[in-house]
Amino acid sequence: METLDWLDLPCRAPDAVAAVAALERQAQLTKPPGSLGALETAAVQLAALQGAVKPSLEKVWISVFAADHGVAEEGVSAFPQAVTGAMVANFAQGGAAISVLARELRASLEVVNLGTVNDVGELPGVRRAWIAAQTANFVRGEAMSTAQLALALQAGAQSVRLADEAGAQLFIGGEMGIGNTTAATALACALLGEAPDALAGAGTGLDEAGVARKAAVVQRALALHGEQAAPIAWLRCVGGFELAALAGAYIAAAQRGMPVLVDGFITSAAALVAARLQPACRPWMLFSHRSQERGHARLLEALEAEPLLDLQLRLGEASGAAVAVPLLRLACALHADMATFAEAGVAQA
Amino acid sequence: METLDWLDLPCRAPDAVAAVAALERQAQLTKPPGSLGALETAAVQLAALQGAVKPSLEKVWISVFAADHGVAEEGVSAFPQAVTGAMVANFAQGGAAISVLARELRASLEVVNLGTVNDVGELPGVRRAWIAAQTANFVRGEAMSTAQLALALQAGAQSVRLADEAGAQLFIGGEMGIGNTTAATALACALLGEAPDALAGAGTGLDEAGVARKAAVVQRALALHGEQAAPIAWLRCVGGFELAALAGAYIAAAQRGMPVLVDGFITSAAALVAARLQPACRPWMLFSHRSQERGHARLLEALEAEPLLDLQLRLGEASGAAVAVPLLRLACALHADMATFAEAGVAQA
Repeated sequence: METLDWLDLPCRAPDAVAAVAALERQAQLTKPPGSLGALETAAVQLAALQGAVKPSLEKVWISVFAADHGVAEEGVSAFPQAVTGAMVANFAQGGAAISVLARELRASLEVVNLGTVNDVGELPGVRRAWIAAQTANFVRGEAMSTAQLALALQAGAQSVRLADEAGAQLFIGGEMGIGNTTAATALACALLGEAPDALAGAGTGLDEAGVARKAAVVQRALALHGEQAAPIAWLRCVGGFELAALAGAYIAAAQRGMPVLVDGFITSAAALVAARLQPACRPWMLFSHRSQERGHARLLEALEAEPLLDLQLRLGEASGAAVAVPLLRLACALHADMATFAEAGVAQA
Repeated sequence: METLDWLDLPCRAPDAVAAVAALERQAQLTKPPGSLGALETAAVQLAALQGAVKPSLEKVWISVFAADHGVAEEGVSAFPQAVTGAMVANFAQGGAAISVLARELRASLEVVNLGTVNDVGELPGVRRAWIAAQTANFVRGEAMSTAQLALALQAGAQSVRLADEAGAQLFIGGEMGIGNTTAATALACALLGEAPDALAGAGTGLDEAGVARKAAVVQRALALHGEQAAPIAWLRCVGGFELAALAGAYIAAAQRGMPVLVDGFITSAAALVAARLQPACRPWMLFSHRSQERGHARLLEALEAEPLLDLQLRLGEASGAAVAVPLLRLACALHADMATFAEAGVAQA
């Protein structure tokens, strides 16, 4: 049986020397100081994380974790539960949004099937890390056992290991799982002390009554598991396999010194869990976008995160993070390839 | 001598049939309806403008218009005037931000020199469309003659012609000119009836006193030319050669049926002039980003524009538009290549 001990291993520290050198370089480039805004900030942060004055994002790795949720039986999603498995097949066949984006970005795409009610079996491009067909319905009991939690966290760490071994310079985690905005909302409420009706949102497309029902489900979950205090206990009691895998991936990435790009609402909930378990993993996170899902703004605030994009996205699958990759690549190219004032013979202000 | 008559030639109409077909396609793709937010909107708009259910942005054309401004002698910029010419050379040598971005995007980059005090002569990649070394100082008189205005407008139209002949699917205009945020602010104030201290901003990096001085300069210009009413007269009296070229390019693009992607504050001022001269050119504009320059928000509001990005950019050179190109390309790829629910065998909500 897997243990949770590895979560406490130390994270790497960002390279402060590279960050200072990158900042100094930015000040010499032929543009008014600061005029490239968030692109300058991103280049300097990546310099610190990659330990290189001129960072690069040629090799990007995307892992999409799929899992089903027992809480789906409470009617919290606009889509039937069989869609999770069907989308795993769609990922494998290249028809999903993240499949298209990964191709366009020349990124490695790994799909990790942690357990789906509609079992589509072995598929090319899908790593089977099966834990169970779904979590238990967390309004009736604990979503998963400690052994299942350990397996899920480890599945995320395994993806980071594969990414690292493939030479990836950036790790992106994504998710697919009918019902998982409900699990993420429960986690966020528990960790932030927020009321369910302040964070519950439309997910894949609930109407107002649906959102109210979802908030009531989250309220029941918080009441049932209310004696819990530790983030890891909340992850086990109201989380999901993919949420645990993402949290494990974020911690493992920081331990290995691999920058991660966080996607939307669900991945941010996992990032908050990771940051609560291991505060030293937070500096390794970049944030891609502000999702249209209602609770995301509060999660970003708690993480002190300023995402690059706000495109009213709410798809998941790592799609928002993928869309932000070209911006980060352009930030790196500008940082590395622009002429300095001295090189170009341009007068400074 | 050039005339202004061509400005009144009709613009093409977007293709409503293609737009409807693109909307119907979006509803069939394997994602919750609307979950790709602004990327869906952009794909549908491009479908209408290209007259194709599946639009494409493989071929992008960028023209950067450089020009000097007589008003620079009022001390309205943090940089010396010689920088305009020096940056033309930097564009040609590949060291400027837009040079790096154009390479990364595999876009065609044309630099158009309309007149710089520091004349760097003929350079590869620079089209010389020389009007004068600079405009006249518009707090003392009219910035340009009618003949100069006609030449500048025509220079923009010529760039669109070259782009069209090269098979470009998107036209991006950019600008470089020390003092040109002052000219753009004067134009914006005149066309919108706003006070200079409501719109004047830091430009390349003025401090508070510098911004106040700039607002006072704009105030003097508005008083001097206050009897003007027509947008074209304001463009001539307080504009710049690059501002006129951009306005001419936007109108010519709409007449040819070429979508344009508007950059930041200065290009938006030119876009407002174009939309006032020819309201039918507005549908051909996409907006890339919300600049950090103070008056941009008001210009975007007047144009009813919702830009894709907000990255605190304030560089100009078409750099913000260039950074948005990958997002539009990904929007097209998602729209064209995602599987439909029927193709993937995924249940709909």
